Amino acid sequence: MALIVQKYGGTSVGDIDRITNVANKVAKTRKNGHDVLVVVSAMRGETNRLLTLANEIDARHSPRELDVLLSTGEQVTIALLAMALQKIGCPARSYTGGQVHILTDSAHTKARIVDIDAARVRQDLADGQVVVVAGFQGIDESGNITTLGRGGSDTTAVALAAALNADECQIYTDVDGVYTTDPRVVPEARRLDLLTYEEMLEMASLGAKVLQLRSVEFASKYNVPVRVLSSFEEGDGTLITVEDEEMERPVISGVAFNRDEAKLTILGVPDRPGIAFNILGPIADENIEVDMIIQNVAEDSTTDFTFTVHRNDYEKALDRLQRIAKELGAREVIGDKRIVKVSIIGVGMRSHAGVASAMFKALSDEGINIQMISTSEIKISVVVDEKYLELSVRALHNEFNLA
Amino acid sequence: MALIVQKYGGTSVGDIDRITNVANKVAKTRKNGHDVLVVVSAMRGETNRLLTLANEIDARHSPRELDVLLSTGEQVTIALLAMALQKIGCPARSYTGGQVHILTDSAHTKARIVDIDAARVRQDLADGQVVVVAGFQGIDESGNITTLGRGGSDTTAVALAAALNADECQIYTDVDGVYTTDPRVVPEARRLDLLTYEEMLEMASLGAKVLQLRSVEFASKYNVPVRVLSSFEEGDGTLITVEDEEMERPVISGVAFNRDEAKLTILGVPDRPGIAFNILGPIADENIEVDMIIQNVAEDSTTDFTFTVHRNDYEKALDRLQRIAKELGAREVIGDKRIVKVSIIGVGMRSHAGVASAMFKALSDEGINIQMISTSEIKISVVVDEKYLELSVRALHNEFNLA
Repeated sequence: MALIVQKYGGTSVGDIDRITNVANKVAKTRKNGHDVLVVVSAMRGETNRLLTLANEIDARHSPRELDVLLSTGEQVTIALLAMALQKIGCPARSYTGGQVHILTDSAHTKARIVDIDAARVRQDLADGQVVVVAGFQGIDESGNITTLGRGGSDTTAVALAAALNADECQIYTDVDGVYTTDPRVVPEARRLDLLTYEEMLEMASLGAKVLQLRSVEFASKYNVPVRVLSSFEEGDGTLITVEDEEMERPVISGVAFNRDEAKLTILGVPDRPGIAFNILGPIADENIEVDMIIQNVAEDSTTDFTFTVHRNDYEKALDRLQRIAKELGAREVIGDKRIVKVSIIGVGMRSHAGVASAMFKALSDEGINIQMISTSEIKISVVVDEKYLELSVRALHNEFNLA
Repeated sequence: MALIVQKYGGTSVGDIDRITNVANKVAKTRKNGHDVLVVVSAMRGETNRLLTLANEIDARHSPRELDVLLSTGEQVTIALLAMALQKIGCPARSYTGGQVHILTDSAHTKARIVDIDAARVRQDLADGQVVVVAGFQGIDESGNITTLGRGGSDTTAVALAAALNADECQIYTDVDGVYTTDPRVVPEARRLDLLTYEEMLEMASLGAKVLQLRSVEFASKYNVPVRVLSSFEEGDGTLITVEDEEMERPVISGVAFNRDEAKLTILGVPDRPGIAFNILGPIADENIEVDMIIQNVAEDSTTDFTFTVHRNDYEKALDRLQRIAKELGAREVIGDKRIVKVSIIGVGMRSHAGVASAMFKALSDEGINIQMISTSEIKISVVVDEKYLELSVRALHNEFNLA
């Protein structure tokens, strides 16, 4: 007998039929002899309906009040799911985030979980109840309702699994696991059985948006095995867990890509301490998030500095960068919106030499020019012209035998 | 400077425009120098929408889970109203029932308020905030969400006014006060400026359903002045308060009536101790509420026993009563669905002799036969054939100079 935490997202609880379907899945897990705690999101469309109401009143609504409003979405789902479970003879109790003491900081609309007091939940589980908890929400020290931001239900599930020392945290979604790459680009893409937290973190941040990034960090920190599964199809999904020393790992687990990037370069910047901050500080002040950052060694007494931003922020960043260039006495600012980032990810590359050169050769064989390169321990990313996206991904998927 | 509690019902907060209208009314009260706490209901239609969802899952849903579900209705309104107040420059904070510690018993869907810890609310008011509280809901000792039943927001408002020792509790609704009788029956009906708690209790229970009965009991117990006003029109409404010794009261304050009654009589029941319980016990066990009860003095060794029930319960009560009659050896059961109850109410009748005879004469002058009579300290009710309803009410309204 194990303790399983299951999380069902908005699509999985999108209407009464689907909530009934979730109840059946939960009951089946219980029949297999396991204790179950379920975390649910708001019914699909509900959060947007509430946001529209708020915006009709005031586009600059207070974050505290927005949290009071939005947290009702999950509260509706927990009550309905508990009713659906009871109807099929499965004892169940629902709780809001506040009721199970999911204590967060006070950063409304993007709060972070600080602590969970799982005593009450533990008692209910011991009494044979299925416990249904509202995802995405908590309370701060003063008892104010907070929310964890979009996708925060994943984090709720992982945090509860950690607090309860659960055997597995199962994230039910509309895909049946994590793939070697996007099957729409490479039809031979294959579902991965196993992935490490680090690999999943690199995957998620690169656009394979199956799981919320923060929930993976949380899982990694507390060592919670996380399984991504489909709500609508049977299957084992993908298990995300700590790296197993005894396991032979493939060199590369997947090829990720991101279409939404744009690059900006400031040329001929005086090469002196603090220059990176002088450039990126004002960009951050504009609330523009920067992804890749590359600074090459200086020639003469000047250097070139390149970074990528979300494509939607390109014009704003370009405008700001031109003013920065004037202030710093830089030579020129150039940019390109028609780029994509392609990455290979795998913990296996740590123990295998020549992964980078194999990657570069595969791209070169297809005549693809690499514009930027950035590497981490378990990931190599390149920026290429957007017209080469599909070709690059297929070439790399093939090169590392992922099919 | 006074502390005012204002309550706005579902129609008053039925859409975004109306919520904005409520915000303006609250802001106006504040500009007049008063502290304001606002209690709101769910937006009109929302509670029914949620009930439909619950019934789609399971018609016999758990009361605990229903409370989790329904309490979201008011939570949406508090957030939206707080946003609307902030938008017009009025600092505001919203709270659920649980957050302001509206402690109730554990009778889900019909809980009773046990205690309120108003410390947090008091602090916010002292800080210059408008406090917006969700009506209709609380928590029990174990932290479970409870609801007070339909119309419970009135009780929330009165209870908060009592806990805060507020100067007045204003109930905003879609009528502009309490009338001497229903203006649809008597066009000359007049809005009452002043009414005692006792009179309002008799009014409310007789069908002038402006205020929830329990909230008036609460107001009477804690001596909270309650004012009924219109959300949509200006005016002073009706103030409901304790009887003022120095005030000259009219003999009769109003004429109430109830169309929904039916009467049942069991004839020739053995006249012995416990017979009333033997008759009404089984009726109560069927969840049938009994209104008037009349037992006349016995002739021979048998007596006749008459009571009224809601017209919807007539057939069920008749069926049950026939079985009771057989068990008790009574002679016969008769009943009539085509009756109405008409009452005159007024604390003034305590000090005026002859009110009852004036009432009976007025009805007799119109040729109206009285079928049953029941009296209390401040009320006289008669049952008449339903075809005489309008005529009776007009005759009594005229007799006691209420126009």
